[in-house]
Amino acid sequence: MADLDAQSPAGAEPPAIPTLRWEEPPEGPVLVLLDQTRLPAEEVELVCTDVPALVEAIRTLAVRGAPLLGIAGAYGVALAAARGYDVDEAAGLLERARPTAVNLGYGVRCAAGAYRAALEKGEGGDQAAASALAAARELHRADAEASGLMAEHGLALVEELVPGGGLRILTHCNSGRLVSGGEGTAFAVALAAHRAGRLRRLWVDETRPLLQGARLTAYEAARSGMAYTLLTDNAAGSLFAAGEVDAVLIGADRIAADGSVANKVGSYPLAVLAKYHHVPFIVVAPVTTVDPDTPDGASIEVEQRSGQEVTEFTLPQIPAAGAEAGGVAGIPVAPLGTQAYNPAFDVTPPELVTAIVTEQGAISPVTGAGLAELCARSRQVTIS
Amino acid sequence: MADLDAQSPAGAEPPAIPTLRWEEPPEGPVLVLLDQTRLPAEEVELVCTDVPALVEAIRTLAVRGAPLLGIAGAYGVALAAARGYDVDEAAGLLERARPTAVNLGYGVRCAAGAYRAALEKGEGGDQAAASALAAARELHRADAEASGLMAEHGLALVEELVPGGGLRILTHCNSGRLVSGGEGTAFAVALAAHRAGRLRRLWVDETRPLLQGARLTAYEAARSGMAYTLLTDNAAGSLFAAGEVDAVLIGADRIAADGSVANKVGSYPLAVLAKYHHVPFIVVAPVTTVDPDTPDGASIEVEQRSGQEVTEFTLPQIPAAGAEAGGVAGIPVAPLGTQAYNPAFDVTPPELVTAIVTEQGAISPVTGAGLAELCARSRQVTIS
Repeated sequence: MADLDAQSPAGAEPPAIPTLRWEEPPEGPVLVLLDQTRLPAEEVELVCTDVPALVEAIRTLAVRGAPLLGIAGAYGVALAAARGYDVDEAAGLLERARPTAVNLGYGVRCAAGAYRAALEKGEGGDQAAASALAAARELHRADAEASGLMAEHGLALVEELVPGGGLRILTHCNSGRLVSGGEGTAFAVALAAHRAGRLRRLWVDETRPLLQGARLTAYEAARSGMAYTLLTDNAAGSLFAAGEVDAVLIGADRIAADGSVANKVGSYPLAVLAKYHHVPFIVVAPVTTVDPDTPDGASIEVEQRSGQEVTEFTLPQIPAAGAEAGGVAGIPVAPLGTQAYNPAFDVTPPELVTAIVTEQGAISPVTGAGLAELCARSRQVTIS
Repeated sequence: MADLDAQSPAGAEPPAIPTLRWEEPPEGPVLVLLDQTRLPAEEVELVCTDVPALVEAIRTLAVRGAPLLGIAGAYGVALAAARGYDVDEAAGLLERARPTAVNLGYGVRCAAGAYRAALEKGEGGDQAAASALAAARELHRADAEASGLMAEHGLALVEELVPGGGLRILTHCNSGRLVSGGEGTAFAVALAAHRAGRLRRLWVDETRPLLQGARLTAYEAARSGMAYTLLTDNAAGSLFAAGEVDAVLIGADRIAADGSVANKVGSYPLAVLAKYHHVPFIVVAPVTTVDPDTPDGASIEVEQRSGQEVTEFTLPQIPAAGAEAGGVAGIPVAPLGTQAYNPAFDVTPPELVTAIVTEQGAISPVTGAGLAELCARSRQVTIS
């Protein structure tokens, strides 16, 4: 198969708009988010002045991606604390905003724990709020650092599994700068390969129904000058059959204690295809994505989203009859009254996962014991 | 998993608009097509007065589906003959309109052969044109009959493979009345199951990029009162993993002599998933879909369509800036300049196909010898 487009030179990346930032204007602190529902058509920022606004941004996927949800959750708690809202209530609202990504609850608990610990030490509300903010900033910094380490470990692993020649990497959904305090998870590995001159092509699954691949991964790949090609999710089978995929790299929203991986719906079919074609299927995620309290894949709660995401086609730039001013309306693509099955995630069992890459290193094969060891290593680093 | 919608009673199907019909108004004969690009929003007919208009309708998928393409191709030749155009030129244009469906060329050759045979017998142009039309009508009738027989054989096979209980059938793309002179191929089997009270649910893959599942199969299922649920193509994996699929039923655009099946892109990943989950994967197609001149899957030419079908979202009812009057324009969903890989079909090797059902009966396992025997049986029927 001929290369379908030309590769731009590496290293000429335009400065990126921050995915998320904390600001302190005179009117009081705010959390500013790059509204991911409007990409790639528009780079618009959303300003959250309270937790309900942030919860809405999380639910509508204006802010999304497991690691970033953790960071957003932590800043959300800091925002509630700084503005004098009830921190416990805010933490509860944030934790329940979406059920599958374990990082969200982790980030919320980090900041809320710091807040409570400060109060218990007898510090005042302002100091406790500062502690919550410091915890959020630390999570943000640590995630950026983890992202760099995952890219390093991931590239080393891919080079070991697929020696020689240019790499053709298939990815699903979005796992770059838009989900992370740094350059992301799976996408960061592909980006590292690109910078090392090792990436021949990034195959980008469009990722229905919300097109995170077409809208967000293609946007990130284009900004980074990577050689990329978009495809419908169901065309990945043809690429495997033609021997055009050297490795699959995806992120994760929750990894159970046995190594089962919840990630964007469509990941599991890729894992089955990869297995059938003897192609490595590699999951890249920070250790905070591992949930030791979820024993196995069957215990992972998979978010079921509205069928309208499937029966209607929604883009912010489509003007549609009945859309409220400034709102978004869908164009029906199926007959009126059609019901749709719309799980946001699926679960891939450990036997289909070639390796899990974290900032603490990679494990392959994927076993509960190996995962537990990675997590223990992470705790040692935190304690030391 | 709970049933997601209620099942309407069988037998209350509203009368269907013909998918394709030959008309002879005073101005001269025409071929009238139900414009499938505008479903389900609008039931609009396209009137073709010449072969270039029909070729355009075939290319834009206003008329589509392997068996129907054969019928349309035959009527196209009859149209050229009746209106005094060059029949050989018309036949060539029609045969080349789309490369993958073997039925198109078959239908064209049937009618063109009848036309030439009449001329060779010394008949005049009008009589030869009548012979071409008679051949097209006969193909149309035979396809309707084949459809009924496929439904019968298919249902018997499914009942044998999946005994007892209600059937949950997964299908991809569209294979009902809209692709056929009768009630279709794979869809006709599901419809027969519905009428026999055996269908618990029809899972309908939306079928990106052109959404034939969401637009056309859902439309046909709704009209027939079947219990159906739409899903994104990549959510099928979750259904298999949850044990919610009893059988996969799909059509075919070309079946090679070794039993390799070309069908709408996304069929092959379903075959791999079905194999992994020990679910029958059944292909339903008339014998005319078998191409003895194509030895194997690698020899099947797969149509590559424009990447715009993936990078832009196009629906006739979306008004878009830059659309020409009455035309259709796309809304970009990926960054400008994004290239897309967009094969219209994929190829499933015989070892992943549980059975092929034709109007001459079913074969399982799928072997070249079995297929040859079915084709021979078909020729005997034709000759007798």
